[in-house]
Amino acid sequence: MKKLINDPADVVSEALLGIAAAHPDLGVDHQNKIVYRADAPVRGKVGLISGGGSGHEPLHGGFVGPGMLDAACAGEVFTSPVPDQVVAATRLADGGAGVLHIVKNYTGDVMNFEMAAELVTADTGVEVASVVVDDDVAVQDSLYTAGRRGVGTTVLLEKITGAAADEGRDLAAVADVARRVNAAGRSMGMALTSCTVPAAGQPTFDLPEGEMEIGIGIHGEPGRRRVPLAPAREVAEMLVEPVLSDLDFTGGDGALVFLNGMGGTPMLELYLMYNEVAKILQKAGVTVVRSLVGPYITSLEMAGCSVTVLKLDDELLRLWDAPVSTPGLRWGR
Amino acid sequence: MKKLINDPADVVSEALLGIAAAHPDLGVDHQNKIVYRADAPVRGKVGLISGGGSGHEPLHGGFVGPGMLDAACAGEVFTSPVPDQVVAATRLADGGAGVLHIVKNYTGDVMNFEMAAELVTADTGVEVASVVVDDDVAVQDSLYTAGRRGVGTTVLLEKITGAAADEGRDLAAVADVARRVNAAGRSMGMALTSCTVPAAGQPTFDLPEGEMEIGIGIHGEPGRRRVPLAPAREVAEMLVEPVLSDLDFTGGDGALVFLNGMGGTPMLELYLMYNEVAKILQKAGVTVVRSLVGPYITSLEMAGCSVTVLKLDDELLRLWDAPVSTPGLRWGR
Repeated sequence: MKKLINDPADVVSEALLGIAAAHPDLGVDHQNKIVYRADAPVRGKVGLISGGGSGHEPLHGGFVGPGMLDAACAGEVFTSPVPDQVVAATRLADGGAGVLHIVKNYTGDVMNFEMAAELVTADTGVEVASVVVDDDVAVQDSLYTAGRRGVGTTVLLEKITGAAADEGRDLAAVADVARRVNAAGRSMGMALTSCTVPAAGQPTFDLPEGEMEIGIGIHGEPGRRRVPLAPAREVAEMLVEPVLSDLDFTGGDGALVFLNGMGGTPMLELYLMYNEVAKILQKAGVTVVRSLVGPYITSLEMAGCSVTVLKLDDELLRLWDAPVSTPGLRWGR
Repeated sequence: MKKLINDPADVVSEALLGIAAAHPDLGVDHQNKIVYRADAPVRGKVGLISGGGSGHEPLHGGFVGPGMLDAACAGEVFTSPVPDQVVAATRLADGGAGVLHIVKNYTGDVMNFEMAAELVTADTGVEVASVVVDDDVAVQDSLYTAGRRGVGTTVLLEKITGAAADEGRDLAAVADVARRVNAAGRSMGMALTSCTVPAAGQPTFDLPEGEMEIGIGIHGEPGRRRVPLAPAREVAEMLVEPVLSDLDFTGGDGALVFLNGMGGTPMLELYLMYNEVAKILQKAGVTVVRSLVGPYITSLEMAGCSVTVLKLDDELLRLWDAPVSTPGLRWGR
């Protein structure tokens, strides 16, 4: 295993020390492994928190800041945060208007966020709403999930919902925006290589030279099928076709296309893939009005990519364009 | 070779199609392989152009936009752009106040930019100034270089000099800022793995399990020494010590620290490394006032990182903080 680490057991806590050192606008609760806005809680604003296993950076800690999340809990690599962390993050984010939990649909995450919501409401009376992201069209159930997995749409949902919270809407309205984003987003991913979890010390799975996995999960969970390597234009078809056949993306106010890198794929390849995806969408009559290209929800150093398409209306588009200031996404301020 | 590409010969031109599709604010001259501001030339502003071999994205095309570059020429992977490309980019960027060439110190780049400067001045009378970036303390001469190589400081220089040009300074003043940044920045990099140039189809060099290369160049050029894998804290020492012994970074208005990923290293490891680097700098009496963490000058999918330290004065700090709007760096607008 070749990694820039010290002891594998300390990877997450030492990375959090680095986040704290690099970003003075963020606070870090090292005991509970929480990244939060240094000015949290924001009085009167609905608090937004998320979290999950580490190894998907910049998701979620890199999306904490004005216009996006108020706090994010970091589990161990590819391991759900425990309820105590979520409770502590909820309290940090509570500015008196309630807190929205944004949860990717993995069994451990869903269970631990639910338990935390019950605990924190019982203890403190904080009002909590939850949205579960389940946008991955690849498989119905999988290794860690009942139902679809939560993947790329999570990034877009955190951004758009963060803008809605910034506008001063109440908890029910903010949760409604989040659910609308989840309902309008679909994703599909693929891998050329496995990644290596530091504590495991060896690749999560074996993917021979000459083969790739279509429909991969962000923890290396099996996808739909293993196929021989193919040119980018065919890979793009394999990812976009299942997305388009799951939801009609034509009409409305156009679509946002998110071409995500899994961590080990160069930007040169991501842009090349974006070109292939854009051509297919154009042919299918989907009007792309916004795009995002880069590694935003990763699987450590896995080589591969995912495609997320989000159907927009004028409100979601306006909220996407609103200012945001986080380490991972920043514009307009 | 596992890559998301079609024909290896088309990687750069197809990636440029993707950049054009993803970024409506940018124009792409596909024949000359140039990314430029769609509103170029900006009347009365000194034009800034750079360029070099592809494979280092987001450098340079991802740094085109308001507050940074006006145009960037893309060579083939790890291959200098030819003079005709640089001539075309210079003409695109010329708003009547002259054009600054930002050139990383590799023999091919320096020669081709020089030739282009002579050609374009003779043909059109455009005034051209050049700055050569040579911040890599690892080696004095190397495979493609006489003198030190140009690496991480290039990113910081393009940002800071772009802000100076935005303020309406003349060509000599803008070039002076660029030279001051180069004089104040030092870098050192390392690799855990090689990368694979698409046209070559196999890794550039062999780096056995259990070994790493200290002082690596961004094209996989040999560094100072090959050593056994070591914990991150020792790797940080091996990178920071040569930087600090080359220039006194104490005093002034503090330092900007740039922890760069080589392309295949997860953000989790980059933040962990940043923590180690920050501790060493603190112990050495260097006051870190700004930071940048992420893959900004990469070597395809190479695993590894580099450290750049830039000594700031109040003017360079103010120019760093000024608004910028490019695909790779964006804040304040």
